[in-house]
Amino acid sequence: MIPAPVIAAFHPPRRTLLGPGPSDVSPQVLAAQSKPIIGHLDPLFVGMMDEVKALLQYAFQTRNEMTLAISAPGSAGMEACFVNLVEPGEKVIVCRNGVFGDRMRQNVERCGGIAVTVDHAWGEPVDPAAVAAALAAHPDARFLAFVHAETSTGALSDAKALCALAKQHQCLSIVDAVTSLGGVELRVDEWGIDAIYSGSQKCLSCVPGLAPVSFSAAAVAKIKQRKTPVQSWFLDQSLVMSYWSGGAKRAYHHTAPVNALYALHEALRMLANEGLEQAWARHKAMHLLLRNGLDALGVQFVVAEPYRLPQLNTVYIPPGIDDVAVRSRLLQQYNLEIGAGLGDFAGKAWRIGLMGYGARQENIALCLHALQQELSVVI
Amino acid sequence: MIPAPVIAAFHPPRRTLLGPGPSDVSPQVLAAQSKPIIGHLDPLFVGMMDEVKALLQYAFQTRNEMTLAISAPGSAGMEACFVNLVEPGEKVIVCRNGVFGDRMRQNVERCGGIAVTVDHAWGEPVDPAAVAAALAAHPDARFLAFVHAETSTGALSDAKALCALAKQHQCLSIVDAVTSLGGVELRVDEWGIDAIYSGSQKCLSCVPGLAPVSFSAAAVAKIKQRKTPVQSWFLDQSLVMSYWSGGAKRAYHHTAPVNALYALHEALRMLANEGLEQAWARHKAMHLLLRNGLDALGVQFVVAEPYRLPQLNTVYIPPGIDDVAVRSRLLQQYNLEIGAGLGDFAGKAWRIGLMGYGARQENIALCLHALQQELSVVI
Repeated sequence: MIPAPVIAAFHPPRRTLLGPGPSDVSPQVLAAQSKPIIGHLDPLFVGMMDEVKALLQYAFQTRNEMTLAISAPGSAGMEACFVNLVEPGEKVIVCRNGVFGDRMRQNVERCGGIAVTVDHAWGEPVDPAAVAAALAAHPDARFLAFVHAETSTGALSDAKALCALAKQHQCLSIVDAVTSLGGVELRVDEWGIDAIYSGSQKCLSCVPGLAPVSFSAAAVAKIKQRKTPVQSWFLDQSLVMSYWSGGAKRAYHHTAPVNALYALHEALRMLANEGLEQAWARHKAMHLLLRNGLDALGVQFVVAEPYRLPQLNTVYIPPGIDDVAVRSRLLQQYNLEIGAGLGDFAGKAWRIGLMGYGARQENIALCLHALQQELSVVI
Repeated sequence: MIPAPVIAAFHPPRRTLLGPGPSDVSPQVLAAQSKPIIGHLDPLFVGMMDEVKALLQYAFQTRNEMTLAISAPGSAGMEACFVNLVEPGEKVIVCRNGVFGDRMRQNVERCGGIAVTVDHAWGEPVDPAAVAAALAAHPDARFLAFVHAETSTGALSDAKALCALAKQHQCLSIVDAVTSLGGVELRVDEWGIDAIYSGSQKCLSCVPGLAPVSFSAAAVAKIKQRKTPVQSWFLDQSLVMSYWSGGAKRAYHHTAPVNALYALHEALRMLANEGLEQAWARHKAMHLLLRNGLDALGVQFVVAEPYRLPQLNTVYIPPGIDDVAVRSRLLQQYNLEIGAGLGDFAGKAWRIGLMGYGARQENIALCLHALQQELSVVI
C-alpha cells in the first residue's frame, strides 16, 4: 500500500476578496450551502431547482424557459453556449477586447466553427461600428459573440446596441455576462440576447462552480435544428433540460451539485430581496467612493470613465511600485486580496473588484487605507 | 422590469441517503465547506490543492503526477478522459453491462472515436474472456474502457484482470471508478490503470460536483502526442494541469470551486485517517449486515454473490409491491432515500447504497426496519 499522507485540517483565514472573483461570500450563503444534503431527485430538491430557475430568470430579466445553472464554472458555461449552438463550418463574429473574447474564439474553433475576430485595444469597449462593418463584410455569419463586461480589463460594452446589430444581420448573439450579471444593467429579453452565460462567483457572491445560462426561443430552435450531435455529452443542453424542466418526470442526467445549488438559491434570493436596480445602484455608488479615493492617491484608471465597470476597477500600477511585493503585503498584513493584471496587463495593472457582497463601504475603507500605506513611499 | 419572485429560504430536512449517490455528507465535511472563501490563486489555497492531490494519490493508490479533481461532476470526469485521450478515428473497446458503459460509448462517438462494444446482461460483471476475444478481433484498438463498479446494476468487474488484458494488447485502459473509489479495493498503479475518473459524492461522501481523475505516464504521453486539439477547452488537461501543477507559477485556467475543494480535502482526510483498507472492510461488513437482513425479509439480490458491490445493493422489488408508493413512503415517513432502478431495471429493482459516511449500522437498522414495515403486507 502507498501510505496515507498525514495532513492537518485546513483552516483558511478570513480574507477580504477585492479581486476579479471569486468575491466574498456572505455568511448567509455559506450557511445555506452547509445544510444537510438531500437527493438530487428528491421532490423537495426539484422544487428548489424550480425556484432557482425563477430567480435566475429575474436576475437575467428574461422569461426564457431554458434558463438554468450549468454544474461547472463560468468557462464551462461559455463552452455550453458554443458547443450547443455552433455547428462545424458555421461562422461566428467574435469581438476581442481582452482575455475572454479570445477564449470565445478558441471555443468557436474547438467546435469546428469559423471565428472572424474584431479586435480592439485592451481596455476599450467593443466598437459597434467595427462590428457593423464585420457583419456587413460577412453576410454568412450566423452568430455575434462578445463579452459584456471584460474581466481582464474592466471595460463595459454596449450589449443592447451590439445585440440590435446582430438581429439586423440575422445573427444570434452569444454574450459573456460572467462579471456583469447582478453588477450592472442587463436585460436579456429587452435587449434581445440569444445565449448568455455567467458565473456564480462574481456579482452574485455565491460560491464558485456554477454557471447560470439562458437561451432564447431562437437559440433553442437553432439547437433543435442541429444536423450533428453536440460534441460534449456533459454540456448537451437537450439532455440537461430533461433534468431541469422535466417537472415530476425529471430524467437523470448527472448528479447535480446539491449544496452549491443551495448556495445559489440563497445568493439569488438575497439579490431579489435587495432588488436588481438597487444592486446596480449600490455597485455604482461603491465604485464612485473607491474612484474618489484612488483619484486622491493619484492612481490612474485604465478604462475611460464612460466604459468603466463599477464592479471591476482596473488601474495602472504606479511607477516604481513592485507589483508582487505590494499584493503580497496586502494579503499577508491586511488579509486583503486585490487582483493581478491578466494577459497584456500582467505586471502593469491591478484589478480591484467590488462585487456583490464585497461591494461594501468597510471594504473600500480597508482597501484605500492599505493602498495609501503601501504606495506612500513613492506618491 | 420583470418583477422579483417572492421565495422563502430553503430548509431541507435531514434525510438518510441510502440511494446510489449522492451519499450522506458528514457534518465535519459540511463544516469544512462553509469556511470563509479565499482566492483560487491565494498561496494558502494553492497549498491546500497540493494536499488534495496527495490525498487523491493515496485514495487511488497511485503516484501519477497528473492526479487532480475536475471542477465538475463525475460525468465530466468521464468526458475528460475520453476527449483528452481519444482522437478522431481511434478505436475503443467499450464494455457495456449497464447505463454507464453505454455512456462511455456515447462519449467515444462524440469525440469522433470508433466504439466497439462488448455487451453483457445487466447485473453481470464484465467477462474478461469476451474482452480478450474483442481485443484479439480488433488489433487496431487503442483503448479498453470499462466500468469498475456499475452504479446502475451493482456489479463489480475485475479491473485488475481487464487492465492486464489491455496491456497485453498495447491498449490504454480507461476505468470508471465513480462508485468504487473508497468503497472497494482499487489500486491504480499496481493494476496498471491508465486513466481513471470518479465522483466526489459516492464513497468519498463529499458534496457532489467534483470528479477526481488520474492519468498514468503512458496516458500523459498519449495526450502530448495528439495531432488534433482537445475538443473541449474546459476539460483540456494540458491547460488544467498548468493550474494544478504549476507550483508557485500556477496559471489561471478557470476559477476553482474553492468551497467544494475544502469539502473534498476534509472528506479525503477522513478517508486517510480511517485508512483505505479499513474503509473497504467497513463497506464489506455493513453490506453483510444489510444482506442478512434482506435475506430474512426474502428480498432477492440482482447480482450473484461474488460480484456484488458492498456499497450498492441492487435488489428485485418483491412481487405485488408498488415501487413508487413504497419509495415515497420511505422518504416521507422515515426521511429515508433508497434508489430507484435505472434503465433496464426501472420499476424492477431498488438500489440501496451504503456509501462512505452512509455505511453505518444505524442506517442499516433504519432501512431494514422501514422495509420490513412496508413489505409486511405481502411478505
